[in-house]
Amino acid sequence: MFTDLPLDQLRAFSSRVEDPTDFDDFWAATVDEADDAWRPPTLTRVEDGTLRAIEVFDVTMSGYAGQPVRGWLRMPAGSTEPLPAVVQYVGYGGGRGRPIENLALAASGFVHLQMDTRGQGSSWSAGATPDDAPPSGPQISGVMTRGIESRESYYYRRLVTDAVMAVRSAASLDLVDASRIGVAGGSQGGALALAATALNREFVAAAAVRVPFLSDIARAITLTDSDPYHEVARYLATHRERVGSVTAVLAYFDSVNFARRAVAPARFSVALMDAITPPSTVFAAYNAYAGPKEITEWAFNGHEAGGPDDDEAEIAFLQAALHHA
Amino acid sequence: MFTDLPLDQLRAFSSRVEDPTDFDDFWAATVDEADDAWRPPTLTRVEDGTLRAIEVFDVTMSGYAGQPVRGWLRMPAGSTEPLPAVVQYVGYGGGRGRPIENLALAASGFVHLQMDTRGQGSSWSAGATPDDAPPSGPQISGVMTRGIESRESYYYRRLVTDAVMAVRSAASLDLVDASRIGVAGGSQGGALALAATALNREFVAAAAVRVPFLSDIARAITLTDSDPYHEVARYLATHRERVGSVTAVLAYFDSVNFARRAVAPARFSVALMDAITPPSTVFAAYNAYAGPKEITEWAFNGHEAGGPDDDEAEIAFLQAALHHA
Amino acid sequence: MFTDLPLDQLRAFSSRVEDPTDFDDFWAATVDEADDAWRPPTLTRVEDGTLRAIEVFDVTMSGYAGQPVRGWLRMPAGSTEPLPAVVQYVGYGGGRGRPIENLALAASGFVHLQMDTRGQGSSWSAGATPDDAPPSGPQISGVMTRGIESRESYYYRRLVTDAVMAVRSAASLDLVDASRIGVAGGSQGGALALAATALNREFVAAAAVRVPFLSDIARAITLTDSDPYHEVARYLATHRERVGSVTAVLAYFDSVNFARRAVAPARFSVALMDAITPPSTVFAAYNAYAGPKEITEWAFNGHEAGGPDDDEAEIAFLQAALHHA
Amino acid sequence: MFTDLPLDQLRAFSSRVEDPTDFDDFWAATVDEADDAWRPPTLTRVEDGTLRAIEVFDVTMSGYAGQPVRGWLRMPAGSTEPLPAVVQYVGYGGGRGRPIENLALAASGFVHLQMDTRGQGSSWSAGATPDDAPPSGPQISGVMTRGIESRESYYYRRLVTDAVMAVRSAASLDLVDASRIGVAGGSQGGALALAATALNREFVAAAAVRVPFLSDIARAITLTDSDPYHEVARYLATHRERVGSVTAVLAYFDSVNFARRAVAPARFSVALMDAITPPSTVFAAYNAYAGPKEITEWAFNGHEAGGPDDDEAEIAFLQAALHHA
Amino acid sequence: MFTDLPLDQLRAFSSRVEDPTDFDDFWAATVDEADDAWRPPTLTRVEDGTLRAIEVFDVTMSGYAGQPVRGWLRMPAGSTEPLPAVVQYVGYGGGRGRPIENLALAASGFVHLQMDTRGQGSSWSAGATPDDAPPSGPQISGVMTRGIESRESYYYRRLVTDAVMAVRSAASLDLVDASRIGVAGGSQGGALALAATALNREFVAAAAVRVPFLSDIARAITLTDSDPYHEVARYLATHRERVGSVTAVLAYFDSVNFARRAVAPARFSVALMDAITPPSTVFAAYNAYAGPKEITEWAFNGHEAGGPDDDEAEIAFLQAALHHA
Amino acid sequence: MFTDLPLDQLRAFSSRVEDPTDFDDFWAATVDEADDAWRPPTLTRVEDGTLRAIEVFDVTMSGYAGQPVRGWLRMPAGSTEPLPAVVQYVGYGGGRGRPIENLALAASGFVHLQMDTRGQGSSWSAGATPDDAPPSGPQISGVMTRGIESRESYYYRRLVTDAVMAVRSAASLDLVDASRIGVAGGSQGGALALAATALNREFVAAAAVRVPFLSDIARAITLTDSDPYHEVARYLATHRERVGSVTAVLAYFDSVNFARRAVAPARFSVALMDAITPPSTVFAAYNAYAGPKEITEWAFNGHEAGGPDDDEAEIAFLQAALHHA
Repeated sequence: MFTDLPLDQLRAFSSRVEDPTDFDDFWAATVDEADDAWRPPTLTRVEDGTLRAIEVFDVTMSGYAGQPVRGWLRMPAGSTEPLPAVVQYVGYGGGRGRPIENLALAASGFVHLQMDTRGQGSSWSAGATPDDAPPSGPQISGVMTRGIESRESYYYRRLVTDAVMAVRSAASLDLVDASRIGVAGGSQGGALALAATALNREFVAAAAVRVPFLSDIARAITLTDSDPYHEVARYLATHRERVGSVTAVLAYFDSVNFARRAVAPARFSVALMDAITPPSTVFAAYNAYAGPKEITEWAFNGHEAGGPDDDEAEIAFLQAALHHA
Repeated sequence: MFTDLPLDQLRAFSSRVEDPTDFDDFWAATVDEADDAWRPPTLTRVEDGTLRAIEVFDVTMSGYAGQPVRGWLRMPAGSTEPLPAVVQYVGYGGGRGRPIENLALAASGFVHLQMDTRGQGSSWSAGATPDDAPPSGPQISGVMTRGIESRESYYYRRLVTDAVMAVRSAASLDLVDASRIGVAGGSQGGALALAATALNREFVAAAAVRVPFLSDIARAITLTDSDPYHEVARYLATHRERVGSVTAVLAYFDSVNFARRAVAPARFSVALMDAITPPSTVFAAYNAYAGPKEITEWAFNGHEAGGPDDDEAEIAFLQAALHHA
Repeated sequence: MFTDLPLDQLRAFSSRVEDPTDFDDFWAATVDEADDAWRPPTLTRVEDGTLRAIEVFDVTMSGYAGQPVRGWLRMPAGSTEPLPAVVQYVGYGGGRGRPIENLALAASGFVHLQMDTRGQGSSWSAGATPDDAPPSGPQISGVMTRGIESRESYYYRRLVTDAVMAVRSAASLDLVDASRIGVAGGSQGGALALAATALNREFVAAAAVRVPFLSDIARAITLTDSDPYHEVARYLATHRERVGSVTAVLAYFDSVNFARRAVAPARFSVALMDAITPPSTVFAAYNAYAGPKEITEWAFNGHEAGGPDDDEAEIAFLQAALHHA
Repeated sequence: MFTDLPLDQLRAFSSRVEDPTDFDDFWAATVDEADDAWRPPTLTRVEDGTLRAIEVFDVTMSGYAGQPVRGWLRMPAGSTEPLPAVVQYVGYGGGRGRPIENLALAASGFVHLQMDTRGQGSSWSAGATPDDAPPSGPQISGVMTRGIESRESYYYRRLVTDAVMAVRSAASLDLVDASRIGVAGGSQGGALALAATALNREFVAAAAVRVPFLSDIARAITLTDSDPYHEVARYLATHRERVGSVTAVLAYFDSVNFARRAVAPARFSVALMDAITPPSTVFAAYNAYAGPKEITEWAFNGHEAGGPDDDEAEIAFLQAALHHA
Repeated sequence: MFTDLPLDQLRAFSSRVEDPTDFDDFWAATVDEADDAWRPPTLTRVEDGTLRAIEVFDVTMSGYAGQPVRGWLRMPAGSTEPLPAVVQYVGYGGGRGRPIENLALAASGFVHLQMDTRGQGSSWSAGATPDDAPPSGPQISGVMTRGIESRESYYYRRLVTDAVMAVRSAASLDLVDASRIGVAGGSQGGALALAATALNREFVAAAAVRVPFLSDIARAITLTDSDPYHEVARYLATHRERVGSVTAVLAYFDSVNFARRAVAPARFSVALMDAITPPSTVFAAYNAYAGPKEITEWAFNGHEAGGPDDDEAEIAFLQAALHHA
Repeated sequence: MFTDLPLDQLRAFSSRVEDPTDFDDFWAATVDEADDAWRPPTLTRVEDGTLRAIEVFDVTMSGYAGQPVRGWLRMPAGSTEPLPAVVQYVGYGGGRGRPIENLALAASGFVHLQMDTRGQGSSWSAGATPDDAPPSGPQISGVMTRGIESRESYYYRRLVTDAVMAVRSAASLDLVDASRIGVAGGSQGGALALAATALNREFVAAAAVRVPFLSDIARAITLTDSDPYHEVARYLATHRERVGSVTAVLAYFDSVNFARRAVAPARFSVALMDAITPPSTVFAAYNAYAGPKEITEWAFNGHEAGGPDDDEAEIAFLQAALHHA
């Protein structure tokens, strides 16, 4: 069933998420710290003897505060010229998975850098990146409330910075045409794509954003009983006195605020039967998005949204936006 | 949790499924009818502008009684020599999906012929093949009891024959080295792979069989409340007088009986927490399998079994078995 | 809980379901084809030795395209005069059941012709009628998307025609006073009763319509996650490109469109806690109904609606409307 | 799925339920008290204008301690001779329902006396009989622990006595041939039928017992999490110190103990997928039954057991056992 | 998720529950009858050897019609002066529990009289008080429809009177300063606290009311599918003809009507994610409350509301309101 | 229902959990490191104005590697002599909660030191202690797989050491009679109590262990689908290659291995319907326990076990064992 407002109200929905006055300063300082610690990525060819038309490299790159972040780089076998690249981010709970998974971007001619997700990578696909966290206070299982005591200690400060730096690492590779980099992701991956677009204006030339998470969080946590948004509600059900401070922290990580600062051409998709990232929260980001934009509405889908139909449409969008004839 | 017998009893489990005396005659007549109506497959290149390292063709081939069955043929772009091929079958409810899905076999150097599933192809991936059925009696939603009044009218008579004929269609292609054809599939796809192996002794040189369905059906329907096995139990809950006749029909379609007749080298996998195809029913087929065989036991998985780990292992097995250095 | 709009909005609800311009032509052609193939029903007395005050006959009658449709005819034992008759249709998944079931109409003095449902008749009561379908494309389990590629191939074209012809078969019987025929049914049965009323203006003198299904389908599939409406939503979740074509097909089978053409006196009932056929969709049909009408609102019931209280009220209504003193 | 022991162990299952030494004294005293307070039943014809082939009377009869108990008496319209009778008891939560329901026994030629259930009659069919209880201690919602402090105050002491007295009331009617009385019921109704058979040896000539409840209660409450057995487990989860005393009280109401004392010919049925009255508990009563007996095993049914197929078989059994040609 | 109206509408919500013209007469007569039968409470010291800083007494006091009602009286060990007292009522299904539970009020310096709940006391804490009921008609499991045939026989007439009389018993004790008595309770306990405040104007000096039950019942039963409100809806789903009479009875027991008559200072709390007592029904009572009042809104809690945070706040409120420095 | 083996097999159950040869060395080194970093606990009186008969202190003490761990110390107000003490540990997901909770031990005359749980303290009671973790690899939500790559980095290495050190901190207090210290806890708290007993032989004089967690983990993760055990199974479902290494790590934290080394008198309890810590895993620890022991079996309880009845029994046991007359 439709899980949110009527369609006309969705299309007009405007989020009331606060835009902190020092939002830009906070992120500039965080990214500067990571930039200072940045080292070039290392690539090791995966020699497992199965894949032939596609090459895969095991990547280690610099993330938050220079901490190592893993990923896979997949590309068409035998490429000799720099190629356009797509940096892709993963949904909640998953990791970079296995080399043999997720072949469509490389098979479509891109250098595909899939970033692992620190400390997740277990519930539906395997990861390999630890979360190097400061002491983290009491939390609900999951990462939504890990370090939520302050914007400095919050888990997503580290993960968003990883995402920003992954674009910079991609741009540093000889294999990549740094003028033609896109970002992509669904759900948590969509949130990271938005953040990476907003904080990498010089590099990101296109963004494919599917049912983005972390968007109008203050509204989302009153709308759905599904995790991961519900992790925050459960935290506040116990730590009743922290509603204000938690809301203030989350504003620094809200996709709406990143969307307000993102200017690359973007393709969004939204699903009207989505109970994980309710459609009004997706429109909250879309309607706030500052660059050229388009959105596909899937009327009868839940959080899977367009699935392979989104895959195809996103690749076509990225090929066009990145002039990948 | 473990969903079935202790592991030592699983490994020794021997099914008591009846082997009908005219099993071979029934299938010989059915396949002969399909052979008589067989026409060469038609291939149309998919020109969607996205995939580049892999080519995809939209295939129409002859199935049961010569009825048209759709599929995708994917292969490495630019191949000039006949390649080893893998014919793959799909799990219950799904269809052949989109061209951009399921790229691993082609990326690993095979001609990959993915057969659509007649009349399913809707619940988790899209199909394009109708089921041209004779008048079908009262049934439970789904296909498990469609036409179950007789072995002649039963749905799986048509689908199994489609699977058998798909191998013959693959063997007829210039793109394919007919001496190096394997079959693969999970769940319903695994059942079809077993049947295609048993009924195509001259063509099938290797079989990758993951958590096969339709195996010791008489036992399975007393062990699990999960569909699709449970469709049969619900049918018999209403049509109480038909227990004997239904059991007799199902014996002609039981994976155990196909396994007893299959001789190509085979790799199985089984999951000890599988509630859809309980592990004793998988061992029922494995222990009955007449050819060289190996099995991987996934202790902590449900019906997803090895997932990408099975994908990698199956490709390695098929590359080795089909001498695809 | 209340599952839909507030009561005042329900009572005023007006459906926006499209009324296709060739709706009447489509059905006239379909029914003409069935009329041409019509043959008189055959009745065989059930001699099971248990029932004594009520006689039961096993009926085979002509349905869609003249295909055989089964049913039970029950009547008071020892009747010598033609009696008023009620043709009754069954809810989704069920069939005509056993002779010993469903005795109230005959015990109340009617000839009661209960039509079996082709290809269903398994999930809660047994049926005996096959569905003689043309090749049917990929579908969701169930019949809601069987043949949905076109209005010609859609399952409900056949079932609605069966329902129309059952009235004509009843009218042909010597046991029946053809000037006093009513129709009745709940849920899917209610949809069939509406269609049979609209397409049998010359025969149907009264209609008892309980929580009718297939009513404002385009709205219903966005309102509920309960099957069978949800089958359509799940189909469109996979076949995303078919939303328009499916909606166009369904308009030919929508109870609202039949209600707009039905003129016999009718009694409806609706349940305000119904999540299967949400009350606004029932009011969609009721408010569109073109003949004399009344409706009973059950505030605290789900899809069972009035249950035995509806049974009693419907029989009283039918006795009055059919002058069955 | 099968919910209990393998079939061969079920068939051999012997309950270890204690048989209290004063069981017979307890029930003799209780029934004597009711006999002393007994008054002839009153019958009022239901004049609702719908039913014609069957007559219905609203009955008030003497139950426990002479308290009034309601029921319906249905019979073929126009009978002039005393007929064999069946006294029927209702399942947990229900009541006698509406006159128009449950017509099969009368339509099959019996005087059918359906006893209402004191204080239940609300969750799936309507009742009209209050429970005139002594002060009842703390209890779980439902009646399974109402008055469970002592055998004297326990709810089922009153209900069982109602059931016993209903047979005596039936036997007192001119409409009934007192030498040809049977009892019938499913679940709770089956338990009451067993008790009424055991405590009415002089009147009950046949018993139709479907998936009887209250059978080997001490075992049942460790086997299932389904209500109503689970009510007892939940009570003991809170009143942990009462396990012994509750077990001792329940022994006086266990169907196994009534079965040990019942001698009329009986037909049982059991369902192998029943999670409400697990099949070993049904076999516990069946194997203990002291009279001539037969049992039908429904392999693929849950608590609905044979449904209409049991209805037909029970009527055939009762007609034969009561010489009702 | 938020389970009810937007917050601004909640705060303004005004119930339309009928206020019966003889409401006061009905309760005056009922309480007068109980007063006439009242006898002083008996206290027996619990000598279990464990608790030392707190003393516990097993109390038997006069309730409805003088019937005995149990409770615990806990107080700081070694008190020599009369203390302010809090009479506390228990939520649905529970009883007074064990002496060792629920120590906070006594540890905070109050005489704490915890009243047992007649006939409940089993599902989450143990009770010891029977319900001495008149013959009670058919009902849904639970007490919500016990005796609902009339206001005289309704279960809550007895329980509310117990609650009223418990305050009078507390006031009679030498241990208690009768000028400083408060009441407290959550859910059903909150409903009883409201009733006891309204009907004990001379004794109750403060009321702590958490997520009160039985409030705007006519609305609540259309808003939630959670028990215990849903018991009423299920009753009316079967007894369809009793909607009017049941609604009329319930008005005499609605917390809104008691709130309209209560004048002591009160602290309420409400939870915006509460699906058991939806927040609009709590505001219905709060907004109707006739005395000085405050309310705490818990945004992210369900029916547990503030839990220990409410405990602390209520004790602080009661200490202040009862001048317990 | 009973969730595990028959009772006689439970009572005889002997775990096959491996006892690593360097188990003692591993823990000696870990505890030595904590001892070296130990600093005396700090106590701050809670001045909230509510509690009067009981005093509460906010405690900060040294845990793993000297990291700060919070707790509450509650005791009877006005004590002047050193008292026997109970160190209590909390179940999974919870924290130390609020001062006003959990008053029974102090009200029974003990100094009650309740240790907070690092990094949990959110899902059912609030905590205040962060987890100062090394970089932690991919994990399932929760702490069961946090740092599971090695025994050194595993979460429970830190938490167990916190538990051990809490006893030492208690023993250092003037308020406490160091010769009369007991430990207590349920579920995760029970596991910690066992570990603290085994690793504090010089201080712990009695242990109250309720349904202990982390016991025969290798068996538990194949027996139940309930978290937190199921977190490990889900981890291994994705990280399929780590079964051996994870099993090896977990052996260092298994309650069975701590039980084999614990000698203080102990009272256990076990619940036969427990699906969280299945009873065979509790008997695994109990049967391995090396000191004097007793066990209470709750037949009809789930993971709540004896609830307040266990509370009372544990206090009585501790009072006796610690000579607290």
